[in-house]
Amino acid sequence: MLKVNVITTGGTIEKVYSEQTSTVENLDNQIDRYLGRLRLPDCDVRVTPLMNKDSLEMTDADRSAILDQVRQKSGELPAVVITHGTDTMVQTGLYLKQALPELKVPIVLTGAMTPIGFEGSDGLQNLTESLFAVRILDPGIYVVMNNQAFPIDRVRKDRETSRFVWID
Amino acid sequence: MLKVNVITTGGTIEKVYSEQTSTVENLDNQIDRYLGRLRLPDCDVRVTPLMNKDSLEMTDADRSAILDQVRQKSGELPAVVITHGTDTMVQTGLYLKQALPELKVPIVLTGAMTPIGFEGSDGLQNLTESLFAVRILDPGIYVVMNNQAFPIDRVRKDRETSRFVWID
Amino acid sequence: MLKVNVITTGGTIEKVYSEQTSTVENLDNQIDRYLGRLRLPDCDVRVTPLMNKDSLEMTDADRSAILDQVRQKSGELPAVVITHGTDTMVQTGLYLKQALPELKVPIVLTGAMTPIGFEGSDGLQNLTESLFAVRILDPGIYVVMNNQAFPIDRVRKDRETSRFVWID
Amino acid sequence: MLKVNVITTGGTIEKVYSEQTSTVENLDNQIDRYLGRLRLPDCDVRVTPLMNKDSLEMTDADRSAILDQVRQKSGELPAVVITHGTDTMVQTGLYLKQALPELKVPIVLTGAMTPIGFEGSDGLQNLTESLFAVRILDPGIYVVMNNQAFPIDRVRKDRETSRFVWID
Repeated sequence: MLKVNVITTGGTIEKVYSEQTSTVENLDNQIDRYLGRLRLPDCDVRVTPLMNKDSLEMTDADRSAILDQVRQKSGELPAVVITHGTDTMVQTGLYLKQALPELKVPIVLTGAMTPIGFEGSDGLQNLTESLFAVRILDPGIYVVMNNQAFPIDRVRKDRETSRFVWID
Repeated sequence: MLKVNVITTGGTIEKVYSEQTSTVENLDNQIDRYLGRLRLPDCDVRVTPLMNKDSLEMTDADRSAILDQVRQKSGELPAVVITHGTDTMVQTGLYLKQALPELKVPIVLTGAMTPIGFEGSDGLQNLTESLFAVRILDPGIYVVMNNQAFPIDRVRKDRETSRFVWID
Repeated sequence: MLKVNVITTGGTIEKVYSEQTSTVENLDNQIDRYLGRLRLPDCDVRVTPLMNKDSLEMTDADRSAILDQVRQKSGELPAVVITHGTDTMVQTGLYLKQALPELKVPIVLTGAMTPIGFEGSDGLQNLTESLFAVRILDPGIYVVMNNQAFPIDRVRKDRETSRFVWID
Repeated sequence: MLKVNVITTGGTIEKVYSEQTSTVENLDNQIDRYLGRLRLPDCDVRVTPLMNKDSLEMTDADRSAILDQVRQKSGELPAVVITHGTDTMVQTGLYLKQALPELKVPIVLTGAMTPIGFEGSDGLQNLTESLFAVRILDPGIYVVMNNQAFPIDRVRKDRETSRFVWID
């Protein structure tokens, strides 16, 4: 039985349409409900909704809180998936890498380009891939997005194409 | 075989999420594709994509164009469904009412509070009800929304609750 | 506020795929959950799950039970939607018609050609149309299916095309 | 760019509901359409619809045809995902294993417990995981199903629980 701590922090993946404002916003948590659609028979998933914000608004204190969450449960919940906004996902991942030099498990950061409840969203695909990836990847920190697993020091978000690409 | 002219003008029902801007906007036409999901065996539906805008931005010229479209095809396509933004839907309907005093068919205006591809949308429900309503309603102009058919002079959009309500 | 008694009796609309038997069967009730996806703000819907069987297996006793259910709640829940298998839907409707000569409300029978949870299903469309129809139709008994409302004595299921058609 | 040959052979994952027979059957190919819902930017997927049958009906000739297909394109399309019925998936995998002793790529067999278009299906999840798995797994033959990757000689389908489980 693999134990996984899914730490949710917001980002586009969790945005919803608000009829009051006619915009998309981070309001309620969504990840838990979508995890419920997946079959994960030998996977003990604990969801920790840490925050729910656009990653452009993340502060050092926020990233520190993510790090604390990873450390606190590392004995009990070894594998970690962090859902996160795509704009500063790599920044958070590099921060974790320098703070956790002796990882014994994989830590996967993921998110989505379109909110998870919207037609054409990649949200459920990326969640599915991330929960699968933590079973197989070697210890380390990764971005898992759209069919690929990127080691954190070899990836960046390309703003023009809105895609994650390899840094050679 | 009932012939229906579905005139699409935009509004929230047709908004989509743009990954470039991270907002919801009126971009491509959506209604035709969703009509394709309904079973309408004795219904000859012609879709006329007239414009694709937020109804707060509609001008007198836009409403005049809608009226022209209704008149032009009234011989060949008697029943009419107009998809429209909810903010000025009643205004457009009242304009049509004063311009078409001797209607022989029902004209239904509909739209949605949440875009049609988004989780929890009422878009497909309202489209379904509108296409059903034009078979049954007496000649006149109506808003059909969320299980109700409102004669156009007896309805308003209540901004606080974001719902259509009866004017007594 | 319109009060509607939704009496569920089974049929294809409520069939589900069973992994144990690898077939589709009437097992759990489904209608309530799908009604929850519709916006029905001025509609007080009470769901009465009466039975859950293929309509080819319905007996006189079953039809009598449906009639009792309609009569019992006719004071409190005037409008009625009955979800039913398509094979003997007209037979049940004609039985109700001869037993209820002085109807003051519409009674709508509906179902689906493909189970409501399956891709391409007409289940939700027909439910949507039925709940809308009971607000507008004159008192009487009808089949509502795929965009049409058929008075019960003017419709039959055509087995070759698997569709409901008018009897002239 | 990873090139993947997706060989489809039928099974529950591709079954559809037939309104003519009121049963679920292997009729048209489905996998291609569902792959179109995934974002696979650095993945060149070629779909080869080889057959479309329940795996209980597979013959030695069928398995031989699958082997030929794997060999033929092994130069051009190194990674392989085979969609297959779950009942004899392991049997096909073991047959491929003894026939391909010097694999240089991963070959993944997958399928589903519920057809891919039905509510609650694991079909898209398993397809997503399989296309991700072929990027990461070491050369060899695997069953990928419901969040797990099983080497082919360490897995069996447990008929009572309808699940794939490890053989110790």
